[in-house]
Amino acid sequence: MTTPLMRLGLFLQGAGHHVAGWRHPEADSGGENVGLIQRVAATAEAGKFDLLFLADGLTTGADAHPSAMARIEPLSLLSALSMTTKHIGLAATASTTYGEPFSTARVFASLDHLSGGRAGWNAVTTSYSRSAANFTRGEHPAHDERYAIAEEFIDVVRGLWDSFADDAFIKDKASGHYIRPDSIHTLDHKGHYFSVKGPLNVSRSPQGHPVIIQAGSSAPGQRLAARTADMVFTAQQTLEEGRAFTQGLKRQVREAGRNPDHLLVLPGVCPVVGATEAEARSLYAELQGGIDPAAATRLLSDRLGHDISGFDLDGPLPDLPESDQLQSRAKLLTDLARTQKLTLRELYYLVAGARGHRIVWGTPEQIADALESWFRAEACDGFNIMPPFFPTQFERFVEDVLPVLRRRGLARTDYDGPTLRENLGLPRPANRFFSEQAA
Amino acid sequence: MTTPLMRLGLFLQGAGHHVAGWRHPEADSGGENVGLIQRVAATAEAGKFDLLFLADGLTTGADAHPSAMARIEPLSLLSALSMTTKHIGLAATASTTYGEPFSTARVFASLDHLSGGRAGWNAVTTSYSRSAANFTRGEHPAHDERYAIAEEFIDVVRGLWDSFADDAFIKDKASGHYIRPDSIHTLDHKGHYFSVKGPLNVSRSPQGHPVIIQAGSSAPGQRLAARTADMVFTAQQTLEEGRAFTQGLKRQVREAGRNPDHLLVLPGVCPVVGATEAEARSLYAELQGGIDPAAATRLLSDRLGHDISGFDLDGPLPDLPESDQLQSRAKLLTDLARTQKLTLRELYYLVAGARGHRIVWGTPEQIADALESWFRAEACDGFNIMPPFFPTQFERFVEDVLPVLRRRGLARTDYDGPTLRENLGLPRPANRFFSEQAA
Repeated sequence: MTTPLMRLGLFLQGAGHHVAGWRHPEADSGGENVGLIQRVAATAEAGKFDLLFLADGLTTGADAHPSAMARIEPLSLLSALSMTTKHIGLAATASTTYGEPFSTARVFASLDHLSGGRAGWNAVTTSYSRSAANFTRGEHPAHDERYAIAEEFIDVVRGLWDSFADDAFIKDKASGHYIRPDSIHTLDHKGHYFSVKGPLNVSRSPQGHPVIIQAGSSAPGQRLAARTADMVFTAQQTLEEGRAFTQGLKRQVREAGRNPDHLLVLPGVCPVVGATEAEARSLYAELQGGIDPAAATRLLSDRLGHDISGFDLDGPLPDLPESDQLQSRAKLLTDLARTQKLTLRELYYLVAGARGHRIVWGTPEQIADALESWFRAEACDGFNIMPPFFPTQFERFVEDVLPVLRRRGLARTDYDGPTLRENLGLPRPANRFFSEQAA
Repeated sequence: MTTPLMRLGLFLQGAGHHVAGWRHPEADSGGENVGLIQRVAATAEAGKFDLLFLADGLTTGADAHPSAMARIEPLSLLSALSMTTKHIGLAATASTTYGEPFSTARVFASLDHLSGGRAGWNAVTTSYSRSAANFTRGEHPAHDERYAIAEEFIDVVRGLWDSFADDAFIKDKASGHYIRPDSIHTLDHKGHYFSVKGPLNVSRSPQGHPVIIQAGSSAPGQRLAARTADMVFTAQQTLEEGRAFTQGLKRQVREAGRNPDHLLVLPGVCPVVGATEAEARSLYAELQGGIDPAAATRLLSDRLGHDISGFDLDGPLPDLPESDQLQSRAKLLTDLARTQKLTLRELYYLVAGARGHRIVWGTPEQIADALESWFRAEACDGFNIMPPFFPTQFERFVEDVLPVLRRRGLARTDYDGPTLRENLGLPRPANRFFSEQAA
């Protein structure tokens, strides 16, 4: 058996992942900087990355992370990039709390058509309660209810994606049949949260279903992922945590009757690349030095779900009640602070770097080592790469780190097929309403 | 004073506008046929069309018009086309009844960024009551309420588009200010239908506001357009009706305190082009001969809002109560049937051709004459061209009809500027919350 390849996503954020990354002299930035984004996407494709990954948020303000302050809406951006790329997967975040299943099914199926089968949907429940105020909602649903909504939402979307048989559109000019009779299914979903009649007005797309990604690590989040996700994006900091999470989740996938190889776990990691260890350390220090303490404190408060601005930055993390917002991400941070005895300042440096994701700095060999150790220990199936700033830090990853991983047989040298599912080794889902045609 | 130029939109529908157009030997078709759509968009840009125009619908079924049966979601498609075109405007339909103002503001501002200022939004209230069943809604709002919702919806969207000062993003690396202080405005809208706090998480886009298009011709539709629209897409059949409508609407624009030149009226027209009159007549007959009578009867029932399948096709239009769905379009058809004494069959041929829009068939000169007469009579500011099928019928329009219009000084020979507003002669709206910077 050959070693599987490390799956690689590029987590694309216009101002970089480090909160002060955009200030670096080499940095170009902007969530609406189309030229920069096209350049970065082309670099990722040249590096044979499996996918581009876009986050999303439904609020902004002067306090927001520069990458989240203003940005092109993710589906619009990926639809554009579907024309400027040929092979790389295109995955975007969309909320199950502030969306409509019919509309979400439409846009992702559309992206799959536009891209020839490269679409992925990161289904999130939207953590921040302030989002409600932009959508004429009085209340943001509580954590567990958001997951109950998400479960039904995803189920409806997948049903809508199966509205047409794969070979429905025969366009027979002689008979006048544009569509083959009896090749449309009306879903007629009537559930607890949604009533959606269907059919969807997009035909079945090249992948059958776009790849489904999730990011929740709470117990309800894991249950949902085990049942429905093709990929999980996560945020463990240590190899032991990573392995416990990944192996625990794969166990749940097996218990749900699925093949554990068909759920891929990709932790986020922020690589700070230098030609020498000294250069990398100095770059990392330079980035940390650029942080505005007030901004970092707000960012950490945001990630913890509690205002920590009144506490001593050089003291330990105070006891905080559980937040309903970012339950799993807040818990990862809190656990880390306890086990590693971090001060609030150390914690805020972590969050400022990559919003709580793992940061690795060093030479290309050292970064390759850091990735390989997790991968060999089965703590993950690959990584979602979160460069501190664009474009040069990402270019160094592609030009200097990837060749090391390739020499070790860990990173792909070319794409396997035209679709994201093929490149990820994931099966094309059967249509629940129409059987496959005989070949 | 020079004669103004005829404004030209291409109403792009994957299977053509004639219900049987896709059956023609030369026709290629498909609402998800990306190659065809790119080719057609390139032809329109080569012809210096002002804009591409996409309709939308929120339901489908085996009975739907082939162009509406399955299609790429319009905003996704235009985002893709923003990368494969450089000058042409990109306008898509989006519903104010089944959308969220925050999401709609986001996607159109995003398209404006992606395209460098070429976005347009055709704001529709969604005619068909069956749409409600796809969006967990018990009831489709009645006609007048839909317009009240639309008015507030558009107002919120325009407010959100002004969330940032035009020069907000200074990205000052030295000071660490990514954004200029005090350059974000929180809308805090609390209205009858919507509560939307804002700010929008997209910066002010190149056009300030994407071009706003409307298609309603009812009294509430006209009032809304007079106050808020930059362009109105309409469906009159005769020059007299067209002039009455256009001049009446421009009067309302003037009464609303706006410049009537800043609301452009574009009737839809379906040109059937032949090298000779005989060829054009024969092509038109061939198209009409390809119609499935059951499909055409359904289409006409749909446009009238009443099932007419039980009536004698060779008798007159029966008396029908007013429909709440497509009020203004149904009225145009009904009036036409009465004044022209059309049989139901004649009416269904009209609707099968271009869903009730004017059909002109003839030589390039004859088609140019038919367009020029309306334009010179100030019955319109230009046309939304609805080819019976793609790509060849549209290519004949561009290659054969446009040169005639150009020789007569009626059609543009090149684009005026990078944005759709510049090409249409429309001003860039001021930001309601931030004054323009001193130059």
